[in-house]
Amino acid sequence: MNKRLKAGLIGLGRIGNIHLQNLSRHPDVEKISICAPSAKRESYPRFQLYRTYQELIQKENPDILFICSPTPTHYEIIAECCQLGIDVFCEKPIDLDLGRIQELKKYIDESGIILQVGFNRRFDPDFSSLKNSLEEKALGKIYQITITSRDPGFPSLDYIASSGGMFMDMTIHDFDMCRFLTGSEISEIYTKGQIRINQELTKYNDIDTATTILTFQNEITTTIINSRDAIYGYDQRIEVFGSKGLITVDNHRINNISIADYDGKKANRPVSFFLERYALSYIAEVDEFIKTILRRGKPSVSIDDALKATEIAVYANQSLALKKVIKL
Amino acid sequence: MNKRLKAGLIGLGRIGNIHLQNLSRHPDVEKISICAPSAKRESYPRFQLYRTYQELIQKENPDILFICSPTPTHYEIIAECCQLGIDVFCEKPIDLDLGRIQELKKYIDESGIILQVGFNRRFDPDFSSLKNSLEEKALGKIYQITITSRDPGFPSLDYIASSGGMFMDMTIHDFDMCRFLTGSEISEIYTKGQIRINQELTKYNDIDTATTILTFQNEITTTIINSRDAIYGYDQRIEVFGSKGLITVDNHRINNISIADYDGKKANRPVSFFLERYALSYIAEVDEFIKTILRRGKPSVSIDDALKATEIAVYANQSLALKKVIKL
Amino acid sequence: MNKRLKAGLIGLGRIGNIHLQNLSRHPDVEKISICAPSAKRESYPRFQLYRTYQELIQKENPDILFICSPTPTHYEIIAECCQLGIDVFCEKPIDLDLGRIQELKKYIDESGIILQVGFNRRFDPDFSSLKNSLEEKALGKIYQITITSRDPGFPSLDYIASSGGMFMDMTIHDFDMCRFLTGSEISEIYTKGQIRINQELTKYNDIDTATTILTFQNEITTTIINSRDAIYGYDQRIEVFGSKGLITVDNHRINNISIADYDGKKANRPVSFFLERYALSYIAEVDEFIKTILRRGKPSVSIDDALKATEIAVYANQSLALKKVIKL
Amino acid sequence: MNKRLKAGLIGLGRIGNIHLQNLSRHPDVEKISICAPSAKRESYPRFQLYRTYQELIQKENPDILFICSPTPTHYEIIAECCQLGIDVFCEKPIDLDLGRIQELKKYIDESGIILQVGFNRRFDPDFSSLKNSLEEKALGKIYQITITSRDPGFPSLDYIASSGGMFMDMTIHDFDMCRFLTGSEISEIYTKGQIRINQELTKYNDIDTATTILTFQNEITTTIINSRDAIYGYDQRIEVFGSKGLITVDNHRINNISIADYDGKKANRPVSFFLERYALSYIAEVDEFIKTILRRGKPSVSIDDALKATEIAVYANQSLALKKVIKL
Repeated sequence: MNKRLKAGLIGLGRIGNIHLQNLSRHPDVEKISICAPSAKRESYPRFQLYRTYQELIQKENPDILFICSPTPTHYEIIAECCQLGIDVFCEKPIDLDLGRIQELKKYIDESGIILQVGFNRRFDPDFSSLKNSLEEKALGKIYQITITSRDPGFPSLDYIASSGGMFMDMTIHDFDMCRFLTGSEISEIYTKGQIRINQELTKYNDIDTATTILTFQNEITTTIINSRDAIYGYDQRIEVFGSKGLITVDNHRINNISIADYDGKKANRPVSFFLERYALSYIAEVDEFIKTILRRGKPSVSIDDALKATEIAVYANQSLALKKVIKL
Repeated sequence: MNKRLKAGLIGLGRIGNIHLQNLSRHPDVEKISICAPSAKRESYPRFQLYRTYQELIQKENPDILFICSPTPTHYEIIAECCQLGIDVFCEKPIDLDLGRIQELKKYIDESGIILQVGFNRRFDPDFSSLKNSLEEKALGKIYQITITSRDPGFPSLDYIASSGGMFMDMTIHDFDMCRFLTGSEISEIYTKGQIRINQELTKYNDIDTATTILTFQNEITTTIINSRDAIYGYDQRIEVFGSKGLITVDNHRINNISIADYDGKKANRPVSFFLERYALSYIAEVDEFIKTILRRGKPSVSIDDALKATEIAVYANQSLALKKVIKL
Repeated sequence: MNKRLKAGLIGLGRIGNIHLQNLSRHPDVEKISICAPSAKRESYPRFQLYRTYQELIQKENPDILFICSPTPTHYEIIAECCQLGIDVFCEKPIDLDLGRIQELKKYIDESGIILQVGFNRRFDPDFSSLKNSLEEKALGKIYQITITSRDPGFPSLDYIASSGGMFMDMTIHDFDMCRFLTGSEISEIYTKGQIRINQELTKYNDIDTATTILTFQNEITTTIINSRDAIYGYDQRIEVFGSKGLITVDNHRINNISIADYDGKKANRPVSFFLERYALSYIAEVDEFIKTILRRGKPSVSIDDALKATEIAVYANQSLALKKVIKL
Repeated sequence: MNKRLKAGLIGLGRIGNIHLQNLSRHPDVEKISICAPSAKRESYPRFQLYRTYQELIQKENPDILFICSPTPTHYEIIAECCQLGIDVFCEKPIDLDLGRIQELKKYIDESGIILQVGFNRRFDPDFSSLKNSLEEKALGKIYQITITSRDPGFPSLDYIASSGGMFMDMTIHDFDMCRFLTGSEISEIYTKGQIRINQELTKYNDIDTATTILTFQNEITTTIINSRDAIYGYDQRIEVFGSKGLITVDNHRINNISIADYDGKKANRPVSFFLERYALSYIAEVDEFIKTILRRGKPSVSIDDALKATEIAVYANQSLALKKVIKL
């Protein structure tokens, strides 16, 4: 029978709470301790709450640590886990700076800890089923992938300010999805980014609308169509075109009801929040992480994946700044 | 090479005009003469116009006659065609009286003329494709058929007055479709008819809403769901359920456009007029009729089909009046 | 703050396990004890297991009891709960005999206990949203309801033998749904039932295929189309037609992926098991029950609802036996 | 009453035959003469056939001329029509050389003849309805347009050889559609073109797969996704995204039938031939042309539109050759 794990969780924002809920129900997790500087103890009566992650580590000696705190804190915590030999699940982005991610990669490799990155969409049942189909050659030779990825509402400017920009914050999921689906690395990137929705973004040197063409070493071209604000709901679609046909992953609607009247037939809009759209993926990625820990395997989404996706985001920003195609 | 046919057309209502248009384009039709007591000559400059059908027949000696005049005139014209040996395409219903249809059947059989009845829906590409699939056993053993058949707007009370009632006027198409798809004759019928929309129908001893269960000799049960007035458009759907699966024939929408906004995703409504929904069927039934004439074959929709569908309508009216299941 | 409840659960079949899982996560449930004569203790390490319900009640003194044992046991357990003042959630059917349900109703009324019946479909998000739309008059005056309800696989003959027959076992959910959606009681019923799939049912005096027309006192007609075995998956659709339009509740597909190739565009089949299709309804009905208990309210699905749905099943069996319309 | 027109038609390929059929049914066309060097007279018994266009013009003195002959012949015929004052409907592309189109533009302007270019897709009911919606601001401010345009089968290498390349032959329709929908001119273009399907294209300096991003002066970005060979049928979809929502134009399926079995629910594939998909557009563009002729109006699709679309194709080829973004 499996050893049951002691888990630490750092950060109780939206994503921290999701992981807390999924860890609580996991049969291989024995105890969960939380580090959340400002959380109310009475809101989390069943858990031990700490104010610093150091204290949590010292007192609880956790087997695994979930890092859901703000991006700037990731580096230090991961580095410490490497020293102490604690396995880590870290939310994306690991860091906004490529060099620092490379350093972490070195520490991780040297320490032998397992670190999994929170690219949860790979674990979405639809997308992982798509990936399986592609591996089984259901589409033959793959030619083109189109990702339409639009957020359901404009984020706050505060959020924007510390986000690292649209490519690093939002499109990074799509970059990872392209690597995941093509099974290859990019050879070329061009991005056309614009401010079309909110002119205040000029202050933040950010954009809200972008179309990006990535070419991969295996010749597959992928197009990513992004917007920060789609009034019709969270738009998360993928189309893969190959010699044998086309696979489409469509949005998830709120329900299966439609109403027909003189104006036509109306179906409800897509679920409009990422925690709802991707709820099953958060469960699946934690299950996968814990399985990997228990059998000391290789993480399915590693620091290398974080590094590669971040590199693409850096190139995208270069293409945007130079208004040129970037060739690697 | 084929003999080219001389056609006569009686009646220039909606359906008469459709047949005129389709005959005009038919390569095997040499000449078309029209009988229409009140049509303006200048509206039909390319055709010879007569005021009585007798005059048309006498002067033009047509090979084939299309009868699109009001139902009460059908009997006399068909009887005369039997005497003169003129082949006939007659719009449904042949007559509202079963006995008179039986007499006509006798005349037709004795005369050897070909008579095809205008159950056009059998020639709709979707429904004839469905029929082919069933004959090829795509569904294995057929269990249940569901026809949803709702008109897109309430007819005028004048129309109602001379229509023969909802079963004889509207549902008769669905009765014929059930016979066509099951390839069998009914053994039992129950209908629940109601006035739900327009109470004035009480004056006409008619109904506007009905649900009918027909059981066929081969044990297939078919359900027909009717309404005289569907605000959301002309609803003409069929589902066939069998041991191997379910075939669905859906409505034809006005176009392939949809718009998504905060309220959901809206597709346009179905085409809302029978001449538009069934346009291709009117072409196909005339093609079929002319082919049958040229090779002196058996008509694909004969006086027997008219008789059987009318019989079902009579039983439906009995079931409605007696509020009972009618067993045959 | 709420009192937290002690719950007893009788029976660990499919549905018993579902309730166990949902009760375990409920914040207002303090402790769960189980009565399951043959369950292995090691499979349920976190729960106290009893072999008889009497022992469970005596030792644990539960506030609420979930009855998920076979139908014949319901009467006795409910009667005892009435004597002891224990509130009850009982799976459907309460009993196969109308007289015994009437007796239980008397006991319940006299005792003042709260009893909720497991007509879970009322709590399905799609169907409860449909009900809300109808109450808000989204469809104006309602004319016709069509329920297509087909099971995804033929049950075992053992199951059939003790099921009470298709109407009592399967259609009873649809009968309840018709009452729920129309907000009225039936005035007339006709059912056409057949054995089309498995001739062995003759031994059990049961059927596998049925079409039923119910007319309600408020003149709405509802059609229920049933089959025990749909190869294409669990088919659970409802259409409501009214003066302002048509609302359709469609099936839930396994995922949102489709593949297009030369043969067409293929979407995955509906989820094929009731526990999966109705998973959210089981959570919602337990939430509702516990809320009702805590505020001592009226149960949203009461013994009266069980009585009425069972009555319809009895009339359906009469209509089937007599091959007649039954008028009330 | 309108003057009825004498029409000449040059070329009896696929598109020439379509125009012949639509002209034959047009009430404002009195006579049609044809120039087709190799057509069999017996195939066109109702028309006067000429072997050279000069002879047709001389003998018939047509009011309007439809040019459906190979692209290299267009220049000379149009130039002659300018001299003789004959109005012209010319199939796309007018010419593969920008300079020659500019010359023709000068001749046309000087002569005062009306010339309409065969960008038929503007007249497709779906796309023209989309255009109307955009003009009525149904989407508010437009941000992004995505055109997926894939042909249903690889053309012959002979066809490729004289086609002018994929951008000039196939994508030119999409370029025109982008101008039509945005109502603006391009400011920037990047195209990623590849040979993925048929390596023989290297001999022809052509490609079979491309993704193109066009930015327009009004800041709308449009993405065009092309392939020469989609096994799943002719894929012609457009999505327009704006501040108020998303409009989708979907493919036209062969019929409205679907079949559900254990493997899922399968709808038929899109119609797989441009003459079928765009049949209504060919009728509408001829109607529009004849209306324009009769009232001596401005052509809705002029030589300027041909010029602009051809310019975009030239820039696309530049971007492809230089592997760079082209800024105007």
